[in-house]
Amino acid sequence: MDQQPTLEFWFDYASNYSYLSVMRMRKLIAEEGIAVRWRPFLLGPIFKEAGWSNSPFVIQKDKGAYMWQDIVRECEKYGQPWQRPSVFPRNSILAARIGLIGEDQPWMLDFCELAMLDNFSLDRDIGSEQNMTALLDSLGLDAADILRRAVSDDNKQRLRERTAQAQAKGIFGAPTFFVGDEMFWGNDRLADAAARLRRAV
Amino acid sequence: MDQQPTLEFWFDYASNYSYLSVMRMRKLIAEEGIAVRWRPFLLGPIFKEAGWSNSPFVIQKDKGAYMWQDIVRECEKYGQPWQRPSVFPRNSILAARIGLIGEDQPWMLDFCELAMLDNFSLDRDIGSEQNMTALLDSLGLDAADILRRAVSDDNKQRLRERTAQAQAKGIFGAPTFFVGDEMFWGNDRLADAAARLRRAV
Repeated sequence: MDQQPTLEFWFDYASNYSYLSVMRMRKLIAEEGIAVRWRPFLLGPIFKEAGWSNSPFVIQKDKGAYMWQDIVRECEKYGQPWQRPSVFPRNSILAARIGLIGEDQPWMLDFCELAMLDNFSLDRDIGSEQNMTALLDSLGLDAADILRRAVSDDNKQRLRERTAQAQAKGIFGAPTFFVGDEMFWGNDRLADAAARLRRAV
Repeated sequence: MDQQPTLEFWFDYASNYSYLSVMRMRKLIAEEGIAVRWRPFLLGPIFKEAGWSNSPFVIQKDKGAYMWQDIVRECEKYGQPWQRPSVFPRNSILAARIGLIGEDQPWMLDFCELAMLDNFSLDRDIGSEQNMTALLDSLGLDAADILRRAVSDDNKQRLRERTAQAQAKGIFGAPTFFVGDEMFWGNDRLADAAARLRRAV
């Protein structure tokens, strides 16, 4: 029996190019029949390790200014809504902790889409427990239980380990995809990763 | 009378992603009837201004390691030859100076292709006067005259000004394209820049 082709998808809820890729997943899953191995992590510690105190889009002014133009065009290209967040990058720790709880659950795709839309289309603070509660409620989930598990010491430690794992895999930005051991960096390479997946089946 | 749609193309002969774009230009010119405004410049001073003593692909080890995988796939995608240069980034000052002499000449596209192939397919030193002489000879040009003008004080100053102009335009990497005032960064955005050009006509 063939194993279902699996796309490993590393992303940060604060990353606008991760937003593009998250919103393309539903179609990809439906059309290509792939499984997604969701790997939420935090870019902050990775940037810190590289010597940066913030996102390169904040530190490198010219690159940042360009990115805010590029992301508008990219959202148009993929037919996704866009509103520039009033805070960038937003604190994505709480969303990532919830993502770790959900990554093997059937509600993960819904949660990721809604959290990303909160951040990049509705300009809502994804670091707010209140907002995350409302979001999980809207999915018919037990928000209190999920939040309690999300902020448990065990889960906090899991997120630290996840981010260390990202570093160990050579991840330096997000989104990053793996097909087996092969790395594809950036929303611009998602189609290539999917094509590689088709050849790998 | 309509003006011919013009793509402004900023690139560095040492940049591997610029290599991809240079090699796509001939087809683009033939199929889209566009004019290219060639803008060779130097990334080094731009990186220096950002606080980097070398290419980000050298300084950021993980990003560099990934790039050497990505560029192999990209060359396959575009059907371009590839051999990893034994020196990276190569000194591209001489090639850029020659590019400034040639940028309004009918031999510019040929020169750019051959210089890029020297660097990224034949592993030749594009900083060598001997290699550049052989390359210009192969195009039936007066290599001695071109080299003399390339290394003149006037032309050296022009290259400094060109690179300062890149900085003033907010360029932070290469290749970078402009359609009017709109910037497109990276070989991944060349198709978008060309599409914008079609809409602008």
